[in-house]
Amino acid sequence: MRKIFIQRNETFIGEEATSLGTKVELTDAPTWIIDPIDGTMNFVHGLPHTCISIALLINKTTEIGVVYNPILEQFFSARRDQGAFLNGAPIRVSGEKELRKALVMMEMGTSRDPEKMKIVLENANNLTPQVHGIRALGSAALNMCMVALGGADISFEFGIHAWDIAAGDIIVREAGGVCIDPAGGPFDVMSRRVLCAATMELAQELAKVLVQYYPERD
Amino acid sequence: MRKIFIQRNETFIGEEATSLGTKVELTDAPTWIIDPIDGTMNFVHGLPHTCISIALLINKTTEIGVVYNPILEQFFSARRDQGAFLNGAPIRVSGEKELRKALVMMEMGTSRDPEKMKIVLENANNLTPQVHGIRALGSAALNMCMVALGGADISFEFGIHAWDIAAGDIIVREAGGVCIDPAGGPFDVMSRRVLCAATMELAQELAKVLVQYYPERD
Repeated sequence: MRKIFIQRNETFIGEEATSLGTKVELTDAPTWIIDPIDGTMNFVHGLPHTCISIALLINKTTEIGVVYNPILEQFFSARRDQGAFLNGAPIRVSGEKELRKALVMMEMGTSRDPEKMKIVLENANNLTPQVHGIRALGSAALNMCMVALGGADISFEFGIHAWDIAAGDIIVREAGGVCIDPAGGPFDVMSRRVLCAATMELAQELAKVLVQYYPERD
Repeated sequence: MRKIFIQRNETFIGEEATSLGTKVELTDAPTWIIDPIDGTMNFVHGLPHTCISIALLINKTTEIGVVYNPILEQFFSARRDQGAFLNGAPIRVSGEKELRKALVMMEMGTSRDPEKMKIVLENANNLTPQVHGIRALGSAALNMCMVALGGADISFEFGIHAWDIAAGDIIVREAGGVCIDPAGGPFDVMSRRVLCAATMELAQELAKVLVQYYPERD
């Protein structure tokens, strides 16, 4: 296995730092983006869809991503240009290109913010008749891993944070999928917006019909 | 272990029988209510939330329920008056009594029937601001088992069938929870309607706010 040399100037981005009021900024320095518990509400309730999410970015490029659900013992991992894995076995996106056949991961009823809740419900109402089915596990990182696994075809979310999606991004891409901005442009891990899909055709088809929400950046 | 003696007049209820046009009727005869694949859409897509659901009713009383997710190796089981188990370990509902604190399992975007879809979306829109969170695994039986496990507090669904809910019903009740009709009356396994919850207080609070849907009976 190729070694990754971590430099002295390495830095961290995580919910715990920002909750102390620290300004979050992604630099070229080696940066660990970490969520010790993604799917916090599930964790509190004891619903077994919660995980640890860890990504390493160097020069703003993601090198490693790990998403681990310790309850269901699902260990998703990816390294740049080396594929994506579930418990060591290679995984691959579904290849689906049509929205009407897509199984969609999204979240409902997690945020209490009225503006975000309105957008979430508008998208749920609009999408339900247009897609094959909608599922919600309650963890952005695990939702994205379901796309990487080929078990779902799309996952999107507004208002999440870098630590929820940085690992999921590389895992989906290394499994053959795409991550874009939900309006169709390039993905930005700090934008608090994500749309990942099995194919670019599918991602762009969804981007055209989504009601957009632009949260304040991290 | 107490033996259950199966009589010669035992009968079966399952999707495969009804799809042949056979009229489904629950009698006092020992009756196996079986769904070989619950969460069929998940199964087709490869989303690992699919299960086998088996219940045995004698004199219309459920004696045994088993829900098994072979992918995640979750084996939920219950026998009348003998408790509920996950992989052999006892499970217990959360005990939650307040709707605003409840994690709710429901389904969206599975049915293509416009009338049912309208009710599903009305309930999603109404409930989202009133509950703690909404989750959707895409399997009625597994949603109910999340309540039995204490990982969620409520599961409800309209338009499902006896084979989706017969095993989940006894598993939830043996874990200390309740199953009622979504309008608040007693549960009827043949009614194609179910509301299960950690407590009767919670079940009745939800029943008061749900938009009701009465599908044609099995």
